[in-house]
Amino acid sequence: MFYFLIDILGTIAFAISGVLVAMDKKLDLFGIFIISFVTAVGGGTLRDMLIGNTSVLWMREPIYITVIAGAVIFSVIFVKQLKYLRRTLFLFDTIGIGLFTMLGIEKGLAADLLPVMCIALGTITACFGGVIRDMLCNEIPVIFRRKEIYATACIMGGISYFVLVLLPFDAAYAYVGAIMIIIITRLLAVKFGIALPNVYRKIER
Amino acid sequence: MFYFLIDILGTIAFAISGVLVAMDKKLDLFGIFIISFVTAVGGGTLRDMLIGNTSVLWMREPIYITVIAGAVIFSVIFVKQLKYLRRTLFLFDTIGIGLFTMLGIEKGLAADLLPVMCIALGTITACFGGVIRDMLCNEIPVIFRRKEIYATACIMGGISYFVLVLLPFDAAYAYVGAIMIIIITRLLAVKFGIALPNVYRKIER
Amino acid sequence: MFYFLIDILGTIAFAISGVLVAMDKKLDLFGIFIISFVTAVGGGTLRDMLIGNTSVLWMREPIYITVIAGAVIFSVIFVKQLKYLRRTLFLFDTIGIGLFTMLGIEKGLAADLLPVMCIALGTITACFGGVIRDMLCNEIPVIFRRKEIYATACIMGGISYFVLVLLPFDAAYAYVGAIMIIIITRLLAVKFGIALPNVYRKIER
Repeated sequence: MFYFLIDILGTIAFAISGVLVAMDKKLDLFGIFIISFVTAVGGGTLRDMLIGNTSVLWMREPIYITVIAGAVIFSVIFVKQLKYLRRTLFLFDTIGIGLFTMLGIEKGLAADLLPVMCIALGTITACFGGVIRDMLCNEIPVIFRRKEIYATACIMGGISYFVLVLLPFDAAYAYVGAIMIIIITRLLAVKFGIALPNVYRKIER
Repeated sequence: MFYFLIDILGTIAFAISGVLVAMDKKLDLFGIFIISFVTAVGGGTLRDMLIGNTSVLWMREPIYITVIAGAVIFSVIFVKQLKYLRRTLFLFDTIGIGLFTMLGIEKGLAADLLPVMCIALGTITACFGGVIRDMLCNEIPVIFRRKEIYATACIMGGISYFVLVLLPFDAAYAYVGAIMIIIITRLLAVKFGIALPNVYRKIER
Repeated sequence: MFYFLIDILGTIAFAISGVLVAMDKKLDLFGIFIISFVTAVGGGTLRDMLIGNTSVLWMREPIYITVIAGAVIFSVIFVKQLKYLRRTLFLFDTIGIGLFTMLGIEKGLAADLLPVMCIALGTITACFGGVIRDMLCNEIPVIFRRKEIYATACIMGGISYFVLVLLPFDAAYAYVGAIMIIIITRLLAVKFGIALPNVYRKIER
């Protein structure tokens, strides 16, 4: 129940971020809805297609399309007020990528994949909705050129999960621990401007 | 047999529209063929991948690749004359999205999906070949910023189908009725310039 | 064993080409890795998704992610020196598309598809990693506007395979023969600047 609530909050945060990008591009209502939808469920959809877990999740669970439709209507009406929600949305997004990473890892485990592939699936679940959103909006995906780490936080959380399980922690504790590590890593990265090492400095000199 | 003919006419219209976009971008013959192919079968391919209906349709039915190859050769040779076919192609395209929407809905029903998901699949079948075409051509998809409604006509047709079946009409009548509604909606939209409500007016003021 | 070595060399060549494109776009380390990964395994991934051969190959065979990670680290460190490897990389790439085409054709045969569909799958395996790379980097795919033929070499090799098997050659000989034809066609195309017929000349006059 608690996880379900986080799932919905994360979905809402992703959907609203999609609306903002789509409106920035002056898309029409249909375009706004599709971009919002893809941002929210695109990562999980790609994950399900890669492991053959079809029909993909959002087709079997009408809660997602309902929540996203609500988020789109809300955002379009209150778009001017959304800027006051910036901090809340950032928090939902951060909690969302934590949970989505673990949801992806669970699916990987259920498909008998190696830990490294589970971590890849977790990162895809959390981050690739935004990648597809940016492809549709004709931009190079923002997580490929982000100043503060984002996908790397998911990868670190995924690694932590498998380390914690090996230590050995109970899987449920490792699950929560990994989510916390993702959230804290991302929060610290934004607060202190932590980025991946710059590979271009050496060349530029 | 009659539906089969419409399917082929729609495929041809989509394939030719792909050729025109590709030639506008000055792609080579291979690029023109791929863009044309993707425009014609991309929506159905995405649908089949989402519901796990693989190998995807065009791989099992060689008629599509044959018809598209023919359409590409014809269009490249008679590209200057295509402008005289503009009205015919528009009509084929419109009839095509009507049928393709219902083909997608049928697949959704066969996969035991909810009506809302069937309508989504129908709209994806009819409209997302063009979306993938535009992504490949480095443009924001035209149906996300179209003046006259297009995907919305498919959604309305899909809703009509389920309403007609509930009323209760015979499924075969509802099928034809929904296609007619899509075609008429799209024709009226183009004739009278009917668009989705503009969500930006409020902000601009 | 021999084919395995070619597979790895091709993967390395593709991965390095991805790094170069990503660094050209000034992506961060995560972006460089993803682009490199997609370039190397994207074609096979799309193939596996189209025929429902899931989980897709790279998820079941950790050798690919390992080799690609190594190639990314190597390329980022020695990026200045890579220009001295240009000829070697071109050769690996050419041998790679030869083998990848045949790997795709084998999967198509295993899925009971028609020869024309097998050839399509082979071409997708060899060429569409680069297509997805270019989509992510916000460019029109280079193989759609290439001066010298590339995908066409794969198609010709694929056709040759089925002709050789019909003649009738032993499948193993036809396999090697088709790979040789792809490699030779591509090498000759680059040496003599052989391109597809220009469809625009007629219009421009």
